[in-house]
Amino acid sequence: MIVVGELINMTRKPVEQAWKQRDEEAIATLAKKQAEAGADYIDVNSGVPGEEAECMAWLVEVVQKAVDVPLSIDTSHPEALSEGLKRVQKTPLINSVSAEKERWSSFLPLLEGVSCRVVGLLVGDSGLPKSVQDRLDNAAFLMEKLGEAGFAEEDIFFDPCVMPVSTDPAAGAELMDALRELESRWPKTHRIAAVSNVSFGLPVRSLLNRTFLSLAMGAGLDAFIMNPSDAGMVQALRAASSLLGKDEYCREYLQAYRAGLLK
Amino acid sequence: MIVVGELINMTRKPVEQAWKQRDEEAIATLAKKQAEAGADYIDVNSGVPGEEAECMAWLVEVVQKAVDVPLSIDTSHPEALSEGLKRVQKTPLINSVSAEKERWSSFLPLLEGVSCRVVGLLVGDSGLPKSVQDRLDNAAFLMEKLGEAGFAEEDIFFDPCVMPVSTDPAAGAELMDALRELESRWPKTHRIAAVSNVSFGLPVRSLLNRTFLSLAMGAGLDAFIMNPSDAGMVQALRAASSLLGKDEYCREYLQAYRAGLLK
Repeated sequence: MIVVGELINMTRKPVEQAWKQRDEEAIATLAKKQAEAGADYIDVNSGVPGEEAECMAWLVEVVQKAVDVPLSIDTSHPEALSEGLKRVQKTPLINSVSAEKERWSSFLPLLEGVSCRVVGLLVGDSGLPKSVQDRLDNAAFLMEKLGEAGFAEEDIFFDPCVMPVSTDPAAGAELMDALRELESRWPKTHRIAAVSNVSFGLPVRSLLNRTFLSLAMGAGLDAFIMNPSDAGMVQALRAASSLLGKDEYCREYLQAYRAGLLK
Repeated sequence: MIVVGELINMTRKPVEQAWKQRDEEAIATLAKKQAEAGADYIDVNSGVPGEEAECMAWLVEVVQKAVDVPLSIDTSHPEALSEGLKRVQKTPLINSVSAEKERWSSFLPLLEGVSCRVVGLLVGDSGLPKSVQDRLDNAAFLMEKLGEAGFAEEDIFFDPCVMPVSTDPAAGAELMDALRELESRWPKTHRIAAVSNVSFGLPVRSLLNRTFLSLAMGAGLDAFIMNPSDAGMVQALRAASSLLGKDEYCREYLQAYRAGLLK
């Protein structure tokens, strides 16, 4: 189970504010908090229009000064990716390439020969995936391109694009099917997602999010873009790991219990 | 989704006490509470050694006076089954037959020509199932016997026997595999379980139980022996139904939300 801490993201007001004021302390605090909560990667998202590259350079420097955890370089902007790659000290996760021509054709040359792992977002030129088959087609395309670029299967994380069940009642079941197929076809890859999109437009989103986390783990999700301090999500993660036999003799579950994290 | 209310069970102290004192009011209250919480069946378990038949007759009479919901006749005792069947007014669920020779050979003749649905516990003469294959073998045996006795597939509920993950880390994953196989081989049957056994011996059992409920629903569980007023279980049930596309446009989820049941 791999947790990517999602809190350092420019779509979040306090983070955007920290960038505007070049408030290193605020960013360092968010990084430390997530590292202490057990994040395996700290995501750094620099999505400020026109300032992506400069912002990424700053975020990477600030976070690396604060923590030892490797980074997830979260951008759709080639120059920001370059600035991030120049500075990383530990093997990063690149979030993300996709099957969109503009994205893979600009990103893949930058990644060749670089030691990194990569998220393959299962979106193609025809837009968001509309079916399990769309996702598998995009995955097959990315497997080919990433294979040519020298990536090993175990360094590829598929993100199947979680969609809201409020607008499409079949969205959840389709995602489960996609996860099972992805694991069955490419068993050494990982499956990653930010699950919270599933509950968009519905009340008590935290209940839906943590339930979906368990369901998706049962279908093969093994990496999570989340707030590693979110109590409900951590509880679901620990409980589902034990129940799925991925936490032998419930060691991590019992450790979380003793740390007062479960209720 | 079918909910069997589990509270009227002689292994529970207040219920045993009510039987000893022939306290009809106590049993009627438990029945009404579960009916109001939406139970589809009210389980009546008469497991008092030496008094099974008399106790079952009393329970069936008392519960039917209190509520209109059909009963789940929960016994391993042929005479108690007979006493229950004589008195039921609505098509009951029989909980349970099994692949144990003594059980099926004494129970099936009593059920021939009777209008009922039946739980097939996937236990055989060699004891508790040790693998997915054990469960499938017991299920195949029961399908044959129940078919000969005139049961339609949609009236058969397989209970795959939930085991604790504390003693066998693979128990949860095996149960998921068994559920998927049972649904795939006999898609018109139901899969039923009392999930709480999975958390035996571990702390914060309610977290494990509600997480397991979601996971098992994702693998094909569609009937639940549970306390229909258990907030955590109801929340997991409503959330997982929506997320798996079994609650179109989240109608039941939103109804539960408006009733203040979700948090």
